[in-house]
Amino acid sequence: MTKPYIRLDKDNAAVLLVDHQTGLLSLVRDIDPDKFKNNVLALADLANYFGLPTILTTSFEQGPNGPLVPELKEMFPSAPYIARPGQINAWDNEDFVNAVKATGKKQLIIAGVVTEVCVAFPALSALEQGYEVFIVTDASGTFNPMTRDAAWDRMSTAGAQLMTWFGTACELHRDWRNDVEGLGTLFSNHIPDYRNLINSFTTLTAGK
Amino acid sequence: MTKPYIRLDKDNAAVLLVDHQTGLLSLVRDIDPDKFKNNVLALADLANYFGLPTILTTSFEQGPNGPLVPELKEMFPSAPYIARPGQINAWDNEDFVNAVKATGKKQLIIAGVVTEVCVAFPALSALEQGYEVFIVTDASGTFNPMTRDAAWDRMSTAGAQLMTWFGTACELHRDWRNDVEGLGTLFSNHIPDYRNLINSFTTLTAGK
Amino acid sequence: MTKPYIRLDKDNAAVLLVDHQTGLLSLVRDIDPDKFKNNVLALADLANYFGLPTILTTSFEQGPNGPLVPELKEMFPSAPYIARPGQINAWDNEDFVNAVKATGKKQLIIAGVVTEVCVAFPALSALEQGYEVFIVTDASGTFNPMTRDAAWDRMSTAGAQLMTWFGTACELHRDWRNDVEGLGTLFSNHIPDYRNLINSFTTLTAGK
Amino acid sequence: MTKPYIRLDKDNAAVLLVDHQTGLLSLVRDIDPDKFKNNVLALADLANYFGLPTILTTSFEQGPNGPLVPELKEMFPSAPYIARPGQINAWDNEDFVNAVKATGKKQLIIAGVVTEVCVAFPALSALEQGYEVFIVTDASGTFNPMTRDAAWDRMSTAGAQLMTWFGTACELHRDWRNDVEGLGTLFSNHIPDYRNLINSFTTLTAGK
Amino acid sequence: MTKPYIRLDKDNAAVLLVDHQTGLLSLVRDIDPDKFKNNVLALADLANYFGLPTILTTSFEQGPNGPLVPELKEMFPSAPYIARPGQINAWDNEDFVNAVKATGKKQLIIAGVVTEVCVAFPALSALEQGYEVFIVTDASGTFNPMTRDAAWDRMSTAGAQLMTWFGTACELHRDWRNDVEGLGTLFSNHIPDYRNLINSFTTLTAGK
Amino acid sequence: MTKPYIRLDKDNAAVLLVDHQTGLLSLVRDIDPDKFKNNVLALADLANYFGLPTILTTSFEQGPNGPLVPELKEMFPSAPYIARPGQINAWDNEDFVNAVKATGKKQLIIAGVVTEVCVAFPALSALEQGYEVFIVTDASGTFNPMTRDAAWDRMSTAGAQLMTWFGTACELHRDWRNDVEGLGTLFSNHIPDYRNLINSFTTLTAGK
Amino acid sequence: MTKPYIRLDKDNAAVLLVDHQTGLLSLVRDIDPDKFKNNVLALADLANYFGLPTILTTSFEQGPNGPLVPELKEMFPSAPYIARPGQINAWDNEDFVNAVKATGKKQLIIAGVVTEVCVAFPALSALEQGYEVFIVTDASGTFNPMTRDAAWDRMSTAGAQLMTWFGTACELHRDWRNDVEGLGTLFSNHIPDYRNLINSFTTLTAGK
Amino acid sequence: MTKPYIRLDKDNAAVLLVDHQTGLLSLVRDIDPDKFKNNVLALADLANYFGLPTILTTSFEQGPNGPLVPELKEMFPSAPYIARPGQINAWDNEDFVNAVKATGKKQLIIAGVVTEVCVAFPALSALEQGYEVFIVTDASGTFNPMTRDAAWDRMSTAGAQLMTWFGTACELHRDWRNDVEGLGTLFSNHIPDYRNLINSFTTLTAGK
Repeated sequence: MTKPYIRLDKDNAAVLLVDHQTGLLSLVRDIDPDKFKNNVLALADLANYFGLPTILTTSFEQGPNGPLVPELKEMFPSAPYIARPGQINAWDNEDFVNAVKATGKKQLIIAGVVTEVCVAFPALSALEQGYEVFIVTDASGTFNPMTRDAAWDRMSTAGAQLMTWFGTACELHRDWRNDVEGLGTLFSNHIPDYRNLINSFTTLTAGK
Repeated sequence: MTKPYIRLDKDNAAVLLVDHQTGLLSLVRDIDPDKFKNNVLALADLANYFGLPTILTTSFEQGPNGPLVPELKEMFPSAPYIARPGQINAWDNEDFVNAVKATGKKQLIIAGVVTEVCVAFPALSALEQGYEVFIVTDASGTFNPMTRDAAWDRMSTAGAQLMTWFGTACELHRDWRNDVEGLGTLFSNHIPDYRNLINSFTTLTAGK
Repeated sequence: MTKPYIRLDKDNAAVLLVDHQTGLLSLVRDIDPDKFKNNVLALADLANYFGLPTILTTSFEQGPNGPLVPELKEMFPSAPYIARPGQINAWDNEDFVNAVKATGKKQLIIAGVVTEVCVAFPALSALEQGYEVFIVTDASGTFNPMTRDAAWDRMSTAGAQLMTWFGTACELHRDWRNDVEGLGTLFSNHIPDYRNLINSFTTLTAGK
Repeated sequence: MTKPYIRLDKDNAAVLLVDHQTGLLSLVRDIDPDKFKNNVLALADLANYFGLPTILTTSFEQGPNGPLVPELKEMFPSAPYIARPGQINAWDNEDFVNAVKATGKKQLIIAGVVTEVCVAFPALSALEQGYEVFIVTDASGTFNPMTRDAAWDRMSTAGAQLMTWFGTACELHRDWRNDVEGLGTLFSNHIPDYRNLINSFTTLTAGK
Repeated sequence: MTKPYIRLDKDNAAVLLVDHQTGLLSLVRDIDPDKFKNNVLALADLANYFGLPTILTTSFEQGPNGPLVPELKEMFPSAPYIARPGQINAWDNEDFVNAVKATGKKQLIIAGVVTEVCVAFPALSALEQGYEVFIVTDASGTFNPMTRDAAWDRMSTAGAQLMTWFGTACELHRDWRNDVEGLGTLFSNHIPDYRNLINSFTTLTAGK
Repeated sequence: MTKPYIRLDKDNAAVLLVDHQTGLLSLVRDIDPDKFKNNVLALADLANYFGLPTILTTSFEQGPNGPLVPELKEMFPSAPYIARPGQINAWDNEDFVNAVKATGKKQLIIAGVVTEVCVAFPALSALEQGYEVFIVTDASGTFNPMTRDAAWDRMSTAGAQLMTWFGTACELHRDWRNDVEGLGTLFSNHIPDYRNLINSFTTLTAGK
Repeated sequence: MTKPYIRLDKDNAAVLLVDHQTGLLSLVRDIDPDKFKNNVLALADLANYFGLPTILTTSFEQGPNGPLVPELKEMFPSAPYIARPGQINAWDNEDFVNAVKATGKKQLIIAGVVTEVCVAFPALSALEQGYEVFIVTDASGTFNPMTRDAAWDRMSTAGAQLMTWFGTACELHRDWRNDVEGLGTLFSNHIPDYRNLINSFTTLTAGK
Repeated sequence: MTKPYIRLDKDNAAVLLVDHQTGLLSLVRDIDPDKFKNNVLALADLANYFGLPTILTTSFEQGPNGPLVPELKEMFPSAPYIARPGQINAWDNEDFVNAVKATGKKQLIIAGVVTEVCVAFPALSALEQGYEVFIVTDASGTFNPMTRDAAWDRMSTAGAQLMTWFGTACELHRDWRNDVEGLGTLFSNHIPDYRNLINSFTTLTAGK
């Protein structure tokens, strides 16, 4: 009756960033914009930091949804970039699925806008295909908390694990000794309270 | 151990609108009235847009519960309309169940007032009968968030999937290319932020 | 894969009111006192209205926990009343369990103060014994919403169904035609919005 | 020591709609978008209904701020429309001030986006010029409630009166008998709860 | 520079209950209905308890606004009752003002629905006439907290004092010794926490 | 037009603790109990620390209101203690006013339960008598935030300054150099975040 | 189909306190600091009171995370104390797991900072190893409620039971008669409302 | 009776940044850390952008309060930097006041941590000295919203104007034409929603 711990493994995980587009972001109202921007960039930073294969995809870039957030494009210059011609569920796009398969990973870390559609639909499709799915909830946004709650319930019931970017980073890193400075920098750049701790500490120990 | 993705299919889905009556609506306090009105009309619009068989039902129209919201009656002039003589659970009404069966659909999209009664009771009955049940949570309202949370838990545990009208529309539509303008209009009419995106876009590209 | 609808049946249900004591009530801060008082009395009224066997129990009445709320004592003059000498979980008290068994009912409707202890403990015990358990969440109170959320999760996971007094009444009644006036009075006495609907209606139709 | 009641007078009031532009609206997060859209349109409707001189103004329409919300343009086809070339405070624009003066009114009803800038700046300027200023707070939006609170404090301290569109309509109308149907329609179109009351009432009295 | 304490005096105060009608109450969403009902009845009880002259008034009783809440009518069988034919501001109705003047009181305790109209308008008129005005804020309701905040600011700036029913009762009573049992009963009937204190106390001291 | 800064002066201030009784505390629901207990004890600690004359008063100790919180009695063994026989406004009690006068101070720091009565009434009376009044808002509690807001408005309008215990301590202390350890201990005992800072700092600098 | 009640047993439970460090505590923002400090100390008190084997562990004490909260160190002078050199999941540290095994207990009561990492990771590991896991949610803190919700969902889905310190104490104690005074003292020290009840009670019955 | 508009003038304004220290920042809990960090840096950016004389001050840098946030030190390398030896109110420090006087400005833009002390105290002192004071409320933080509300009331009553960094920037800039790109960059760097608008706009008009 014990439950296996399906645990993130940096050698077996890929990141899917779905529809973080400049227009669609104006729909996100369940997370404050300052915090949401920070969370999305933190997730991107950690994907880079751990060298996880990352796939970018957008929906209707030429229309009102707007272009992919420029920072993401710059951070992943050589990542597969699938501008979907119309499929709402990214998993309905063959190129996208092929890009996922090409990573050879079995664990998918997914975030996107809006949660109940751009995140939930591919998550449910991937679960059906046997992938282990981890939702980065705080790098995913939607219209309001009620919508988010419903989306979380649907994904969790289907077997997805609800994570945040910080928990994802910690579970991937496993041990500070793998790289204290690298992880510390990631946290310092995206957690103001942690940055303050580091600054206080550094100042106090500077002269030691 | 993979989980099948029970996905809305516009060829296999019917919509049940339960007890959206002018009196009962004054009981709804877990969603702001402006937003709730918009959500209910958005769900009705999408039912029409996708041509889904839709069933209307009311409880005690002649009494304090009041008549069905007039807009709904007008939008579905030829839909089955079951004014229940007393059954609280619509599924206890033979005409209602027959109307559902007559649609020949296996997926039921349900919304109503109040959530823990008019929505949850028929949802639980339908699940027991083997239907796939999708709750449009944001077109369903009740007394307060605590009541809603309890109702969601009961329905989700029983196997219902918690949706919102936007996620429902997206899952039914599958691909923007099926009809860009139709879906865009639906969104523009019911999502002010999306309407703004479209208006900005249209203006900027007007002269192109 | 269909899920049976475990539905309240007024011929097979008993009500357990656990530790609604004047001292303990000052601990309840997840529901506003005006509303909580109303919910508890509404549950008591419905127990009486449907003639459900009801069991009262208290913990340490002589100490700071205080006496049972007088209204409850008055409403159930002949109900079994188990003043527990020390057991925190009412189900650990033999008299209480015997009183439950003596009802001959298989469905237990439970409410009490505080939720994660006085409600959750007997609920978990009863589930283990094969009872069908329905928690009247809004007639149960505790220290804060976070505590409530944890308690709900524990009870729901164990198989209890999360109800509110209104949903409980509706599921028990099944059909307005069983007694329009009785149910209407119950609602009018405990739902101000419904009372207003009835008053508006009555006034308008008075002269008809 | 008594305080004069500076009361809205429909013969002495003008409406200033400042920077309700499709881009800027995405900045508004202190009011839900469904409600905010409704409030702005309600204010526009009441301006039309009472025949108040109305002035439209925008900031940088050609840039990211986006065009004026199309509905407003359509509702006031012949209103002065000042597309400001750069002034952030509309009152710094001579055409705008001249348009205000041209109305010959001493009471200014102001709403706009965002509250602490596009509303507060011209409000403070107008107060300095001796106008009586009424802020339609719920048709004015900004980044978050904290910003709104600060803006309200600044405007109120300077002598502006904080109104909402409903209070504004009622104070202008004075007496239902001036036009029951007109005011009723305005309310029915913009207050769902009031619409429900009217629909219940109409149905019940239809056959009388 | 000291500020006089304008203090409620039971020999110089009258109560104005404005538009607590069954239809209009469905518009009140800034206070929970259970609590609001309790507050209004508490105010009515205290008006009776202190024997304060009380004036009832309604707006359009025959229409969707609905009749006066029946409890209020019953509690003040011989109070002046002004069913206004159309004036939104009760102070615009000559009968109402005459009724106020007839009380011979200089302090007016006002509550009503909705706050920014039915309460604020007569409050501002009365202040202009030199009355001392006390708003019973928690027996007055409106659409949402934002509307309430704006209305409070307008009334407070104009010189009205913002009270609640409990503070009003305490300021009128001055000294418990004037009637311990009467005031205690008022509190016990309308403050569940106080009732619990009394019940605990009474039980513990019963045998003394 | 400049505004004098009426600033707390430890040589000219007295503290009034009004009705912090074990029964009345169960009425306080606008501040969480853990925080409120801490705030009240912090105020008591600072009164002791600065050696401010402190006056204790209670209302009806023998009845349901309960005794003064024991900690306060212990911390001020020789303070004037006025158990009022019935006056709700402590300022109506001659002994209390005499005790205040006997301090010879012109600045009164007031806190109590409940805010709109036990705090506001004596505050308004003291202001009328020419005292400078400082309300310790976070050591004063009441039924809910709405009541608090109304009470704050009434007191602020009358000239009272709204403080918190931390701001009060800082304004009294003026300069850390007067006693670093004393003030640090006060903060460490009542501000967990500050205690953490101190503990981190002390550990890091311990070996220096 | 009945569900076994996995119930805390004081003879079979150990407590794991993970990373309650002075620096990390500044990251906790889903619970107010006053309340959180109280909850953590309450859990420590109960661990001591029931004589449960308790294990302390920290992460990177020498760095910005800061030392263990001194109170915890003092309360468990002889408890195993594992200062992990780098492992983020305490269960990845052999000494920690050995310390757990050495207790010989099968029930683990876990709390820590932050919830989704320091609590969730060892909880998931322990569940996989067949332990019965109880999370003391209110003695565990994290960045915000959204992060907490995701962490709770992950842990609950994996089989952990969500508790609070009060529920934990009650389930361990089983019967007040085991030690009325001991449990009462624990509650009095950490539940202000309960302390008030006791103080009121003691005073009233003192002379009896 | 008109009220002069005391308006920010970039030629007459100085900025005072008070005690934004790495330790003290952990006390700020009325604004989310991501947002607060952004607001403080935005204020610093605007001070630089408009070339306003800026004064930095800290309290007890060597102790637990921690060093000034490094970013601020870097952004103002040649600004007066007053590390106060003990004065809590910066205005009690002669060097600080002299630095203020040396700017020759009459308008002071103040922000700091914590609001009711480090901001309010110098603000009240400056008002007394005849300065025009503008509080940047969203770059000032404190323990909780209740503390903030009290501090705002005290400062506003004394004559300070409550601003936010965005309103401050707009009032200083007056006209976009003074520098479209500069102001746009400021907004793009600190308002994610505005950045999105610009990115959408730039992409759409890129090819034009």
